[in-house]
Amino acid sequence: MATHRFTPTAYHNVIGSLPPALHIADGDTVVTETLDAAGYDKEGVQRASGPNPMNGPIFVEGAERGDSLKVEILGMVPTRDTGFTRSVVAGNVVDPEDVRTLPPSDKVIWQIDREALSTRLSAPVAGLESFVLPLSPMIGCFGVAPSLGQAISTATSGEFGGNMDYRLLAPGTTIWFPVSAPGALFFLGDCHAVQGDGEIVGTGIETTFEVTVRLSVEKKKIIWPRGETADDIFTIGNARPLDQALQHATSEMLRWLASDYGLDKTAASHLLGQVVRYDVGNVFDPAYTMACRVSKTWLEGR
Amino acid sequence: MATHRFTPTAYHNVIGSLPPALHIADGDTVVTETLDAAGYDKEGVQRASGPNPMNGPIFVEGAERGDSLKVEILGMVPTRDTGFTRSVVAGNVVDPEDVRTLPPSDKVIWQIDREALSTRLSAPVAGLESFVLPLSPMIGCFGVAPSLGQAISTATSGEFGGNMDYRLLAPGTTIWFPVSAPGALFFLGDCHAVQGDGEIVGTGIETTFEVTVRLSVEKKKIIWPRGETADDIFTIGNARPLDQALQHATSEMLRWLASDYGLDKTAASHLLGQVVRYDVGNVFDPAYTMACRVSKTWLEGR
Amino acid sequence: MATHRFTPTAYHNVIGSLPPALHIADGDTVVTETLDAAGYDKEGVQRASGPNPMNGPIFVEGAERGDSLKVEILGMVPTRDTGFTRSVVAGNVVDPEDVRTLPPSDKVIWQIDREALSTRLSAPVAGLESFVLPLSPMIGCFGVAPSLGQAISTATSGEFGGNMDYRLLAPGTTIWFPVSAPGALFFLGDCHAVQGDGEIVGTGIETTFEVTVRLSVEKKKIIWPRGETADDIFTIGNARPLDQALQHATSEMLRWLASDYGLDKTAASHLLGQVVRYDVGNVFDPAYTMACRVSKTWLEGR
Amino acid sequence: MATHRFTPTAYHNVIGSLPPALHIADGDTVVTETLDAAGYDKEGVQRASGPNPMNGPIFVEGAERGDSLKVEILGMVPTRDTGFTRSVVAGNVVDPEDVRTLPPSDKVIWQIDREALSTRLSAPVAGLESFVLPLSPMIGCFGVAPSLGQAISTATSGEFGGNMDYRLLAPGTTIWFPVSAPGALFFLGDCHAVQGDGEIVGTGIETTFEVTVRLSVEKKKIIWPRGETADDIFTIGNARPLDQALQHATSEMLRWLASDYGLDKTAASHLLGQVVRYDVGNVFDPAYTMACRVSKTWLEGR
Repeated sequence: MATHRFTPTAYHNVIGSLPPALHIADGDTVVTETLDAAGYDKEGVQRASGPNPMNGPIFVEGAERGDSLKVEILGMVPTRDTGFTRSVVAGNVVDPEDVRTLPPSDKVIWQIDREALSTRLSAPVAGLESFVLPLSPMIGCFGVAPSLGQAISTATSGEFGGNMDYRLLAPGTTIWFPVSAPGALFFLGDCHAVQGDGEIVGTGIETTFEVTVRLSVEKKKIIWPRGETADDIFTIGNARPLDQALQHATSEMLRWLASDYGLDKTAASHLLGQVVRYDVGNVFDPAYTMACRVSKTWLEGR
Repeated sequence: MATHRFTPTAYHNVIGSLPPALHIADGDTVVTETLDAAGYDKEGVQRASGPNPMNGPIFVEGAERGDSLKVEILGMVPTRDTGFTRSVVAGNVVDPEDVRTLPPSDKVIWQIDREALSTRLSAPVAGLESFVLPLSPMIGCFGVAPSLGQAISTATSGEFGGNMDYRLLAPGTTIWFPVSAPGALFFLGDCHAVQGDGEIVGTGIETTFEVTVRLSVEKKKIIWPRGETADDIFTIGNARPLDQALQHATSEMLRWLASDYGLDKTAASHLLGQVVRYDVGNVFDPAYTMACRVSKTWLEGR
Repeated sequence: MATHRFTPTAYHNVIGSLPPALHIADGDTVVTETLDAAGYDKEGVQRASGPNPMNGPIFVEGAERGDSLKVEILGMVPTRDTGFTRSVVAGNVVDPEDVRTLPPSDKVIWQIDREALSTRLSAPVAGLESFVLPLSPMIGCFGVAPSLGQAISTATSGEFGGNMDYRLLAPGTTIWFPVSAPGALFFLGDCHAVQGDGEIVGTGIETTFEVTVRLSVEKKKIIWPRGETADDIFTIGNARPLDQALQHATSEMLRWLASDYGLDKTAASHLLGQVVRYDVGNVFDPAYTMACRVSKTWLEGR
Repeated sequence: MATHRFTPTAYHNVIGSLPPALHIADGDTVVTETLDAAGYDKEGVQRASGPNPMNGPIFVEGAERGDSLKVEILGMVPTRDTGFTRSVVAGNVVDPEDVRTLPPSDKVIWQIDREALSTRLSAPVAGLESFVLPLSPMIGCFGVAPSLGQAISTATSGEFGGNMDYRLLAPGTTIWFPVSAPGALFFLGDCHAVQGDGEIVGTGIETTFEVTVRLSVEKKKIIWPRGETADDIFTIGNARPLDQALQHATSEMLRWLASDYGLDKTAASHLLGQVVRYDVGNVFDPAYTMACRVSKTWLEGR
């Protein structure tokens, strides 16, 4: 398998059936540097506009509609010493009348220590003087061209992936996206140095990264994205309200447990009913993200 | 402080301003045996009807409206060798059209090994032949008399607590409920041997327990329940949709971080935005439950 | 049938199994004067606290659990020359970030012309100098004791009725509530001189009324309230989100069309699919209200 | 102004920045024949695939980003003697557990009497033997290219319009869409002979039409679609859940009442609070549609 160092000359605010920027073979690895969510590069130069400018699309040979594109997130290295966040929780995550007393939300700078792999606020904030966070890099927005020739804003997400802002989409995680377009047409960007559940201020710590991913084609039809970490398998649903995102993820997990793990709906219900975990990816974007996660402990030997 | 061994002579399907079954002093401990959610005791005799028959109410001396009742869950010991679950995920946790193909949901028995502290299905289910779960006891339904003299079904929850079915409400956890009625009027029941996030089959593993709780009064006004484990603090919101439960829990956390940790809305936003965890308690009951959780690591010294 | 002139000596902020304030026979009529939602009477004297103090409970002889209580709203006569509203739309009916720029919501007085049967703002408001509304009286909050011995705040609603704030619950309308407690235990109050869909400022024009209702018992089991006007039949669902309220109302309509109009699910679907109307009752209270309405034109002869 | 008779040679399942099929001047009229939602023409020949194949895009000279495209629906004439519907309410409009007992949903044919302008089921259905509906033509799906160069499935809707399936989008109605792309790029299709609120079986009576629209450019920035009938003005919100669609529509109405009718938020609240009407457009598509409607009676002279 080849490794491609991909330097985009153009960035995209939609994920769709755009002309490929790179062709690779099934199983190849790509190393690429992403802009931050506002379109600034590691030198602080603005190279694109928001929202979430994407690198891509990457055409993967052999990927056909009905396949899955397997994306192994092999590594993420921060490439800049600063990141930014918004400073106040978004209006939709607090009780409506409480929005009245939220302060204005500003852009705030964080220092990133790339040796220690930690981050802290640049300017002191009362109460958080000693607040230092270990980095926990994750990809905020990535996926494949959607169905029907659609091109969808990188602000949101759907069956095709997109701006899920899910914390566990990180190095060591593998994710599968349902392929609609020939070549899959893979995009990525909007990487975070760290982020809480929900992305409730509207950002993680936004900065630039060098991301290494391996892209492979599987002849397997899925509806919603599926994933795997060292410990768990998970499915993702993207929608509003959160209830519906949870429904999508749960329905996808039932299909997966049936097709790959030999558990019919009753057996899967017994399992999930007592061991399932749900993770809130984002409750900020036009489509919220919920993951349905199961420890591989319960699936050994299946 | 005294320890009361409380044996109910009556059980309740509402949480409300009912005549106290027990009077205790602020700081006393109560040991009591709960029925399972269908009203059966440890001998398998039906002593009450569902839903979720509660032990109580317990009148705590000194508790006044505007106070908080602090409930320390000191211990939970299973008292029966069997539990039960429903066998299929509920219709509301899958995509609507998928409900058509769900099998009928039956009551299913689980064996509980009270030595090994584990549980497994009584009758073999294809695919789960070696499925053995460690016990993780939790209280499914507990709380205090609600405001306005209301009496609310133990099937649901609200600011007063109730049927939250939240996995972390377990031994080692402390929870505070907002007091509305004199004496608080504390109820508990519906204990589970284990349960996944969401309670998606409509039950955890329902069985009988001996529960030990310590009840204290704090002169502190809260709106939604708050909690603490060894590692985290958390707040709870109860509502549909899940989005709104998340709003309640987040608003309560902002109030708590301000009043007790000296973090104004901006500082709290910086913190929560990057480290918050959200747990889905239940997505089954008339009110869903979402917890907003923060590691105490970030609050040391505050 | 007798007509009872009922003057309450106590008012209630819950709907529940409280001791009856009046006993009547099946088919009797009751004439009673209601307080406004803040508890003030027609003389402007505060006789009770909010929320929504109710007259009742009225015990109807022969009403048993599983029956329906039929309530015919025979008349509503305003008894005061003033009403009040809140002055700004509630935070939950606008986009969350727009809540920041909502002005503070104050109590505002309206003049009620009981001869002309119209109302207008007491103090001039720029842009509304000639704004005069015809009265359209409606009952904001009424219903019967809920199941399980619950007592539920008059701020909200459920299968039992309650604070539905639905505009068509007006003179000429008949509504049926599912009986849970012996005697049904009927409550009413919170009458509005007029109100838009949704009750989006949190009030209609709140004032005092003399209300005439006839209460009868039907041996018929319903789950959600049902209603009838001169032109339509309708069902009501109460829940959040609105989507769920719509589900309850639609499911109830399907049951009704099957049991009383001989339309199976397919026939009912053909009918509703092309002629149904949905009315938003309230999108303000803890439970939202949606009505599913069908013109009787389509049901003639059935 | 010119009248263009537009016969498409291609149809689209997305609304987006596609190459124009027709160029017209600001204020011109277009007469065009639409396919039914499944892609069949008036002769019953399949000319395109679903979902909802659109005629267009139509480039309107002078339309720039930030403008509004005004669409006057001048006429709709049915061009075929048959239409179709699905036969059973969709799973998401009934209580989840009730989905289990819904019959399978089939395609069903309706006869359209183009003289009498009425429609009835082709094959008799028990209970609906005399069910004849007057036609009430409406456009199910229309709008303009969305922002950011997106191309969005004709199954759904957003700020740009799309598959709103709102009953009042009919002859005599004017609607304004926010322009994002040069020329606006107007699409239309998916016309219904009649449809109930919500489109709860997933279709109206789907058939082919000759539609006459006049397209003009206004230099006015709007966020969500706005409309006007003989009696009312209205705004439209598209989202899930319905609560959010209502928020979008209400926020847009507040902006409109401020900018064009001189009513600040308080005056607008007084007005809407007591006279607003909400219409459920669709509760079937990926984005639900709610309209916020105000009678022009209240706006005379403003």
